[in-house]
Amino acid sequence: MSNYCILLQYEGTRYQGWQKQESTDNTIQGKLEALLSKMAGEPIAVHGSGRTDAGVHAKGQVANFHMETSLTPTQLMEKMNFYLPEDIAVISIAEVDERFHSRLHAKGKTYCYRVINSPLPHLFERKYAVQIEEQLDVPAMRIAALQLIGTHDFKAFTSLKKSKKSTVRTIEEIRIDERETHPQGGKEILFTFRGDGFLYHMVRIITGTLLEVGLHKRDAESIAGVLAGGKREQAGELAPAKGLTLMEARY
Amino acid sequence: MSNYCILLQYEGTRYQGWQKQESTDNTIQGKLEALLSKMAGEPIAVHGSGRTDAGVHAKGQVANFHMETSLTPTQLMEKMNFYLPEDIAVISIAEVDERFHSRLHAKGKTYCYRVINSPLPHLFERKYAVQIEEQLDVPAMRIAALQLIGTHDFKAFTSLKKSKKSTVRTIEEIRIDERETHPQGGKEILFTFRGDGFLYHMVRIITGTLLEVGLHKRDAESIAGVLAGGKREQAGELAPAKGLTLMEARY
Repeated sequence: MSNYCILLQYEGTRYQGWQKQESTDNTIQGKLEALLSKMAGEPIAVHGSGRTDAGVHAKGQVANFHMETSLTPTQLMEKMNFYLPEDIAVISIAEVDERFHSRLHAKGKTYCYRVINSPLPHLFERKYAVQIEEQLDVPAMRIAALQLIGTHDFKAFTSLKKSKKSTVRTIEEIRIDERETHPQGGKEILFTFRGDGFLYHMVRIITGTLLEVGLHKRDAESIAGVLAGGKREQAGELAPAKGLTLMEARY
Repeated sequence: MSNYCILLQYEGTRYQGWQKQESTDNTIQGKLEALLSKMAGEPIAVHGSGRTDAGVHAKGQVANFHMETSLTPTQLMEKMNFYLPEDIAVISIAEVDERFHSRLHAKGKTYCYRVINSPLPHLFERKYAVQIEEQLDVPAMRIAALQLIGTHDFKAFTSLKKSKKSTVRTIEEIRIDERETHPQGGKEILFTFRGDGFLYHMVRIITGTLLEVGLHKRDAESIAGVLAGGKREQAGELAPAKGLTLMEARY
């Protein structure tokens, strides 16, 4: 029995998120477990570095599973890619220590959130970014983001209700980059979040709050207060899933 | 009656190409004419800078049409975008001289052809690039491409049969750029073709021929001979449509 660690990419558009559900087989974990269980002839459990919500994409999801096979790791990866749908792919595989666990051993994650800031249609990005027509105030969003850096109780920035688990997390970096898109005018604003872990909906609520700052619906200086208050209703709207991509899990 | 010039983008995946056809209403030109004719209450003809094949994309198609409307150009563009499907968009509009004609006055075009050169899946590029697993010899393709620069009879590089029209065209530039994709290995090879005009299937046949050079199925030095021979069967295979994007039309 070997423990395989895989690096995964998926376009989340068609799926009900990472986590297997009773009510649907249309999840990334569900697709992987169904395929591997069929290949192995016995149930195989796949552990991801963390859940991604319905509609969220991944360029660097990490997962692991224990399986008995006569295939080399590369052959196993190729066979998986042969049978997986075209919007899920394994891009790297390695045999790892039997005790390695993708979620328990993850030390950090990086997420990106893409915003098209333009009134012009950007059709090639429509599945991977949200579009905001009004011009966003990027310097104000950067000031707002700075207040979230460090170790804080992020209770105000999660949809998780009444959990006994800690809501303290460390955000190492929130970077906000701009790049030109169309020569006719239009830019993409890319939010990069690096931290030791993120609570349920945390990246999307932070993004939604920063966007409200960018639209001058909320003061840049108000974020520290929202954080201290610990009340979900004081933070911003949940930003749409399609703009979010899990870029990497670190170990 | 004003003459409107529009800059268009489309993802060609779902369409039977640019040109309106009797047999299907599923063409870009067909969609535009149907919409504008409905808006105007009379038939409106839309002229494109040139046809794109079924499955070919555009980031800079140019078209024009004559129409009577009380809308400003910007309002007209917004209304068009409101009703157009999500994979066709107008990104710029201007009122132009009544004699301006997108096809007749085009001085040149630029096309890009994208190749993912890797055995690893690249799912986010799957609709916009073709994938070739074996490593391509880029320097050999560059030598092959050089023989096509300049003014030549490109009869060997078109699927057009027995036309009375000239098959002489000028290619100003064929640039072949490489960039890394996955950190796990994989690169994209981007072919950029700039010329005064391109014959039916010309960019795709040239690309197919260059790819055969890149795979060492054909000598880099053989291209001049194919050009001189003028025989379609001596050139390479037609490269798949989905890798091709019309980037601009110049006036």
